[in-house]
Amino acid sequence: MRSESDFIGQREIPKDALWGIHSLRAKENFPDQTAFHKEWFMAIGIVKQACYQTYLSFLKAIEDKFPQEEFPFQLIDSKLIDELEKASIEINDGKHFEHFICPAIQGGAGTSINMNLNEIIANLALQNTGKDCGSYQEIDPFEHANVFQSTNDVIPTALKVAAIRLLQDLEDSINSLRTQVEKTESKHRNVLRQGYTQMQAAVPSSYDKLFSTYNNALSRDWWRVSKCFERIKEVNLGGGAIGTGLSIPRFFIVEVVPKLQKLTGLPITRSENLSDTTANLDSFVEVHATLKAHAVNLEKMAADLRLLGSDLFQNREVHLPQKQVGSSIMPGKINPVIPEFVISAAHKIYANDLMISNLSGQGCLELNAYLPSIGHALLDSIKLLIAANNSLADNLFKDLVIKINPIEETILKNPSVATALSPYIGYHQAAKLAKEMKTKEISILQANDNLQLIEIDTLKKLIQPEELLKLGFRIGETLQ
Amino acid sequence: MRSESDFIGQREIPKDALWGIHSLRAKENFPDQTAFHKEWFMAIGIVKQACYQTYLSFLKAIEDKFPQEEFPFQLIDSKLIDELEKASIEINDGKHFEHFICPAIQGGAGTSINMNLNEIIANLALQNTGKDCGSYQEIDPFEHANVFQSTNDVIPTALKVAAIRLLQDLEDSINSLRTQVEKTESKHRNVLRQGYTQMQAAVPSSYDKLFSTYNNALSRDWWRVSKCFERIKEVNLGGGAIGTGLSIPRFFIVEVVPKLQKLTGLPITRSENLSDTTANLDSFVEVHATLKAHAVNLEKMAADLRLLGSDLFQNREVHLPQKQVGSSIMPGKINPVIPEFVISAAHKIYANDLMISNLSGQGCLELNAYLPSIGHALLDSIKLLIAANNSLADNLFKDLVIKINPIEETILKNPSVATALSPYIGYHQAAKLAKEMKTKEISILQANDNLQLIEIDTLKKLIQPEELLKLGFRIGETLQ
Amino acid sequence: MRSESDFIGQREIPKDALWGIHSLRAKENFPDQTAFHKEWFMAIGIVKQACYQTYLSFLKAIEDKFPQEEFPFQLIDSKLIDELEKASIEINDGKHFEHFICPAIQGGAGTSINMNLNEIIANLALQNTGKDCGSYQEIDPFEHANVFQSTNDVIPTALKVAAIRLLQDLEDSINSLRTQVEKTESKHRNVLRQGYTQMQAAVPSSYDKLFSTYNNALSRDWWRVSKCFERIKEVNLGGGAIGTGLSIPRFFIVEVVPKLQKLTGLPITRSENLSDTTANLDSFVEVHATLKAHAVNLEKMAADLRLLGSDLFQNREVHLPQKQVGSSIMPGKINPVIPEFVISAAHKIYANDLMISNLSGQGCLELNAYLPSIGHALLDSIKLLIAANNSLADNLFKDLVIKINPIEETILKNPSVATALSPYIGYHQAAKLAKEMKTKEISILQANDNLQLIEIDTLKKLIQPEELLKLGFRIGETLQ
Amino acid sequence: MRSESDFIGQREIPKDALWGIHSLRAKENFPDQTAFHKEWFMAIGIVKQACYQTYLSFLKAIEDKFPQEEFPFQLIDSKLIDELEKASIEINDGKHFEHFICPAIQGGAGTSINMNLNEIIANLALQNTGKDCGSYQEIDPFEHANVFQSTNDVIPTALKVAAIRLLQDLEDSINSLRTQVEKTESKHRNVLRQGYTQMQAAVPSSYDKLFSTYNNALSRDWWRVSKCFERIKEVNLGGGAIGTGLSIPRFFIVEVVPKLQKLTGLPITRSENLSDTTANLDSFVEVHATLKAHAVNLEKMAADLRLLGSDLFQNREVHLPQKQVGSSIMPGKINPVIPEFVISAAHKIYANDLMISNLSGQGCLELNAYLPSIGHALLDSIKLLIAANNSLADNLFKDLVIKINPIEETILKNPSVATALSPYIGYHQAAKLAKEMKTKEISILQANDNLQLIEIDTLKKLIQPEELLKLGFRIGETLQ
Repeated sequence: MRSESDFIGQREIPKDALWGIHSLRAKENFPDQTAFHKEWFMAIGIVKQACYQTYLSFLKAIEDKFPQEEFPFQLIDSKLIDELEKASIEINDGKHFEHFICPAIQGGAGTSINMNLNEIIANLALQNTGKDCGSYQEIDPFEHANVFQSTNDVIPTALKVAAIRLLQDLEDSINSLRTQVEKTESKHRNVLRQGYTQMQAAVPSSYDKLFSTYNNALSRDWWRVSKCFERIKEVNLGGGAIGTGLSIPRFFIVEVVPKLQKLTGLPITRSENLSDTTANLDSFVEVHATLKAHAVNLEKMAADLRLLGSDLFQNREVHLPQKQVGSSIMPGKINPVIPEFVISAAHKIYANDLMISNLSGQGCLELNAYLPSIGHALLDSIKLLIAANNSLADNLFKDLVIKINPIEETILKNPSVATALSPYIGYHQAAKLAKEMKTKEISILQANDNLQLIEIDTLKKLIQPEELLKLGFRIGETLQ
Repeated sequence: MRSESDFIGQREIPKDALWGIHSLRAKENFPDQTAFHKEWFMAIGIVKQACYQTYLSFLKAIEDKFPQEEFPFQLIDSKLIDELEKASIEINDGKHFEHFICPAIQGGAGTSINMNLNEIIANLALQNTGKDCGSYQEIDPFEHANVFQSTNDVIPTALKVAAIRLLQDLEDSINSLRTQVEKTESKHRNVLRQGYTQMQAAVPSSYDKLFSTYNNALSRDWWRVSKCFERIKEVNLGGGAIGTGLSIPRFFIVEVVPKLQKLTGLPITRSENLSDTTANLDSFVEVHATLKAHAVNLEKMAADLRLLGSDLFQNREVHLPQKQVGSSIMPGKINPVIPEFVISAAHKIYANDLMISNLSGQGCLELNAYLPSIGHALLDSIKLLIAANNSLADNLFKDLVIKINPIEETILKNPSVATALSPYIGYHQAAKLAKEMKTKEISILQANDNLQLIEIDTLKKLIQPEELLKLGFRIGETLQ
Repeated sequence: MRSESDFIGQREIPKDALWGIHSLRAKENFPDQTAFHKEWFMAIGIVKQACYQTYLSFLKAIEDKFPQEEFPFQLIDSKLIDELEKASIEINDGKHFEHFICPAIQGGAGTSINMNLNEIIANLALQNTGKDCGSYQEIDPFEHANVFQSTNDVIPTALKVAAIRLLQDLEDSINSLRTQVEKTESKHRNVLRQGYTQMQAAVPSSYDKLFSTYNNALSRDWWRVSKCFERIKEVNLGGGAIGTGLSIPRFFIVEVVPKLQKLTGLPITRSENLSDTTANLDSFVEVHATLKAHAVNLEKMAADLRLLGSDLFQNREVHLPQKQVGSSIMPGKINPVIPEFVISAAHKIYANDLMISNLSGQGCLELNAYLPSIGHALLDSIKLLIAANNSLADNLFKDLVIKINPIEETILKNPSVATALSPYIGYHQAAKLAKEMKTKEISILQANDNLQLIEIDTLKKLIQPEELLKLGFRIGETLQ
Repeated sequence: MRSESDFIGQREIPKDALWGIHSLRAKENFPDQTAFHKEWFMAIGIVKQACYQTYLSFLKAIEDKFPQEEFPFQLIDSKLIDELEKASIEINDGKHFEHFICPAIQGGAGTSINMNLNEIIANLALQNTGKDCGSYQEIDPFEHANVFQSTNDVIPTALKVAAIRLLQDLEDSINSLRTQVEKTESKHRNVLRQGYTQMQAAVPSSYDKLFSTYNNALSRDWWRVSKCFERIKEVNLGGGAIGTGLSIPRFFIVEVVPKLQKLTGLPITRSENLSDTTANLDSFVEVHATLKAHAVNLEKMAADLRLLGSDLFQNREVHLPQKQVGSSIMPGKINPVIPEFVISAAHKIYANDLMISNLSGQGCLELNAYLPSIGHALLDSIKLLIAANNSLADNLFKDLVIKINPIEETILKNPSVATALSPYIGYHQAAKLAKEMKTKEISILQANDNLQLIEIDTLKKLIQPEELLKLGFRIGETLQ
């Protein structure tokens, strides 16, 4: 064990723990068990790496511009900074996550996240230079690991890096899903099916039309997600505690974001109003709302597929692939587990959306203290959506089968097909025909035989599949 | 009283009621009392006007192309259509709203809304041509007033028209508010104030910085709102029941949206996938999310102002205008009623957002039956935001007063100002200084007198207001 | 027009308006259009009546105890109080609601509601005594109409009165619905039907079992609602601004709640901690959560019924009554409008629940400023639930029809029935049988013919309807 | 590696993995990373133990009643059952959790949870009897580990066991917190403080009154939580797939719940309507709403404390204990991290509440497929509340310090104190006094000196602390 202390007092820390007393305080103050997202942890690594690289440039600039001069302020040796950078790279590689002991739900606006990282980095640097963990007089979590940084700029900046990285995966997952949906769409071009509104039979449609609605919705989702990074690409790194940059050299403020941009390869830019970016989190609300719109489309699509593939569906034509045993007691039962997973995920995202808005609205003056919860929920939703899209693409659409029933069974016995006759015989006469069909459960041909409301040839023409599916009727055609 | 009947049976209707039996059924089936938004009612007028005008063009095109020909389908006399158009114009003018008897919360996907309008228009046309209300053999709500229309295309199209009209007012209201915020911002350029994070004093900031965060947030809000109409400008008018256009002439489908565009002067276009636009409501989710992001910014700003103007604020500098008596029992009490109104409105909008997402996710196959509730909540939120912005601009910002306290009282006695010294003496030494200030409640100058941690001249320089406010410190400057 | 003034300045008021300048300020400060609930308005009448009656008792007690004494404090003439009481009775009768001009969404913690009522009551009293509206030197909204009252005790107390009154109607509506559900249940005792889990066929059940689940859920709903009034029966009337009763005679504090209890006939009691009741609104959260649980049950039931009565339901047995024309374009279409109305209402209630919790959590020290929005949402939900229950009872259950299909069509061809054989042949053998049934679409009898997994006599016994429906199998019986 | 197969095909499984192919399918179908709650996992152990013990009783009863008889159905050897029981005990002890590989968000209504457990138990039993994992011909996950069980009865029953166990801890945590709050309350009995409504000064109150509002709220919370178990004590264990008990001996159905009750020591009972308990989840909605009401009270209290202890609070009297370094950049900064943690937790609970209601409303016919998400959110909230209460008690209230300022500074200079004079000089005169105080920032005594509105002796009497704090004024007293 080693001993560490803060203004409250002294605590014993396991000898080789990379975390220190400030992480321990957080763990005790916030006894939550929700796991912090590793993606955020890693992104903090690269953000700090950008800071350390900028510090080196700063040292070099000072040396160049003011050789041999002495300053009233303290400078850190470049070798020490090198060690910090190495440590930060390991973080970005996802190493040492087991030393991150802060829970996801916490107070303190992210300070505990930042301090846990500062302690890990300082101790890693100490270890790598053959020193004991905790020898902070050599490498200090505040003065060295956190140099020219503030929780309030590093942590939200890293959140944006983590989010943008994940959003790229989300885009890919949407596109994979779209590819599968499009395949289904093209395979069933012009295949007539019964349309339904309000769970009651409506006029006929086709399978490609239905799948095109999913495809279009996913295209919008993709387009929106692809625009998301623009909403969060502006970071406040360099802004310090409240965006004013107090105690940070202007050189650093100007250089650090381009450095981060280069390191991440992401189109990150410095916010033009660092105070605004520090205080207002509406961009996260906006981005998450995009995720929610995607979740809404997924829920709708998943619920449709569950219904179409349901045992209770009359003349079922759609057959979902069977992915796992459906029951531990009912032999042979297969359930729509993928749609259910997707709908569950969608509702988790609605819940996350609520939390993000609520907490974003509760910012106070220079800062919003709830960034940790907001960031957690944001990353949570992106990851869930990726999972949902991938599972839909791989586990559902890939092996979706549609077996078409004869048209008479579904379309022509359905009273709503009488709608096609409205222009010829009017709504009220068509309603009579529909009633005849419904009461006697007969097809439109038989019903018209009984009631003689329209010429048989016109009727036959009107109920041709190609006629039912084309967009509107043409005057010229129908006459000739 | 007059008598009307439907497939269920006969009902008595007040003689001059413009509504008919279908409206009555709705009223009885949905015993809710929430008032329907008049803006939606009016927009249905103009959408139907576009349909009637298109019908007239259709008649003319047929006459031109097929003179003297006879058709197997029915055509309506152009004079009857003229009367329908006149009636629809009155609706768009907001007349006869008292004959709209459907509540906002209803089943049926909007059919009752459409039928109530169809009945009003048919009866208006009957009245205007000297006939009795209810003489539907002359002018029929289905065959005439609803010609080539479906609830599923007319009602959502009208919702979009109503929303876009209101969104324009919302843009104006945001801009009015921004103007007021900007005035406050420019009036207090570089006026130093104590910054706060987590309700504890942080490093210094200035009033213009604080108001610039509001201004920036409102600029984003404006930008987002100004983009909203693009999300909902695509309408499915002409698509009929499920977007396939069945029973509607292609001529009509092609012509009706440009006609509506011209009539409304709004950039409305026909959706390229009418089935998608009929089935998926994610665009409303997206638009409402924008409204919610705006509400989040308003809540944050309103809560800030309430806090800054609060009696409990130490050395209060911000004074909200007094708008009404604050208590019926406590004489002289004045309350922050405008911020409270804004926060209440924001939470109503969060609630609306939840309902819109939840119900949008519950679309089923070709349609989402919950359009009435979704549309109601959407218009509700836009109107509330307009009210909130206008009240903030007129009742709060216009007469906001800031009275500055001497700097010693607020800034220099606050331990966080020690942050400015970190680069010179390090975090841990600065922490000692801060502790001395806090414990003895003394200014940074006195504390440094006691502890002698930094040169007095350097210290004085560092705590100059202009030094505290500029973005980052310059190496060259501090040295010279 | 008459002229009224407050500390801000003078305003013109229509001569006979019962509202005054304070109502006008509210209308201008809060430009919202949401209608205030009349039930709350009326309840304020009876609460104020209790105050006036208590004031009369107070006068009498003083006279009795201290005849001929003079007091340093002001007393109001009993005749004036009589006039105020008369006016308050008219309010409780629902008169003059058109003079209530405050919107539902407002700032100010209810002060505007109270002042609008104070102005109406003072002006009514003035009118009734032959004086002009606005002659407040005679009858003053503050000193007379509001005597010994505070917004912070009168308005929440009245909310509780309004809520309890409506909760009684809600109980009745639940019981009406239960009666109808029970009728359906008893009519279909032991009628076998296919059970479904996850929209896939499961083991058999019966119609009475299904309807008993609704009935049980509604019984819980009723029980919970019947307990609700206990959660809100404790009122803070007499507590004044913050529950300390400052400036109110103890006599009044002690007497006013029993008076209100007597007047309303409701089991209202005085809170034992008036400060707590003034500051904390968790009881409304609790009560509304009960409403939400009811809404959840209604949504589930409504969605079931919509599904069971759907056109897409294989071998549909349940037929919902036809309540209105289902489409303006599709002749003969009938939709499940009542379930849709109920589901819409349920989601409005979920949204209200969110707003109530969010705002209840944002109380601050001695008060929660959001009572108006919270109260509005609460009454909204109760009224919607009453509407939903009544519509379900009258428009759906009353004429629900179930037409039973032959058992072979539904039950015996369904692979899940093989579950009944598990104890005899094991899960894996039963799974083989199920697979045979599913693949060849044959009944369990035919499948067993093919595979010979169980004795035909045992099989026949096991699939008897009475065997399938009884709770568990008995060893003794099966053997004999 | 070993090989396992299901109806889809064969898969390689690590040789000593206790999970099997069905767990693997779940992991692949539901690529979510949210950790399942160990408390639920453990509770499934004890529920299965009850099933195995009941099976042993069943074997014994058969032997007693039908010695030497042969049955057409299969019986499992009691030694095998003994091994299963041993395994289930290890589960209840929390062992082998690393072999539970299902994520929290999943499709399939819990079947994957149950199968993962069945596989773990079967393999554990195999290992313990010296056999290889995967030798299911010896001990089968379905036919043995799951004997007489269904996912649909075991998993929700276990959820209730887990919830009740945690609710007991929650009760304890509320009581610990109440003890601390009460201590603070008694320590500051009758200590006058400025009251605030709407963040503006209101009439005076006292510290014990304020803390009594927290205490009362927590008492209600405790009472509600203590009633929660009654809402979920009814379980459907023995009901099988849909509560009809098909394929389960009645003996088992009758015996298994008492067995579980004995094993757990919890007051669990068998539901009287097993179908209802299987289909409807409103009890979870109800229980979670109780948790939410508690969260609302915690948020309000935490926000109050943060405000009272804030740097911006004029004449701050309340000092929160300092629990950790508040900033990585601002030396000496201390933040209200415990209130922030509590508020974050509260909002997580609001989000969970939304998800639980939404998904509970989406049950369908015999089952609600979303039990896994609902259960996860429920346990999540209970655990978070325990954490919040414990942190508040230990990290905030235990060391809370209140330093009282002289009365003149806070109370007598506050215009609202003029309320005390209303009965004597009327609202409007008192308002004049308040205005004088506010404008000139003087005490009520000085203001009355200026305006001479009330006798100085009466005034002095009225503003005595004991006079300001007692509930209402007494006529007799004031005169003498």
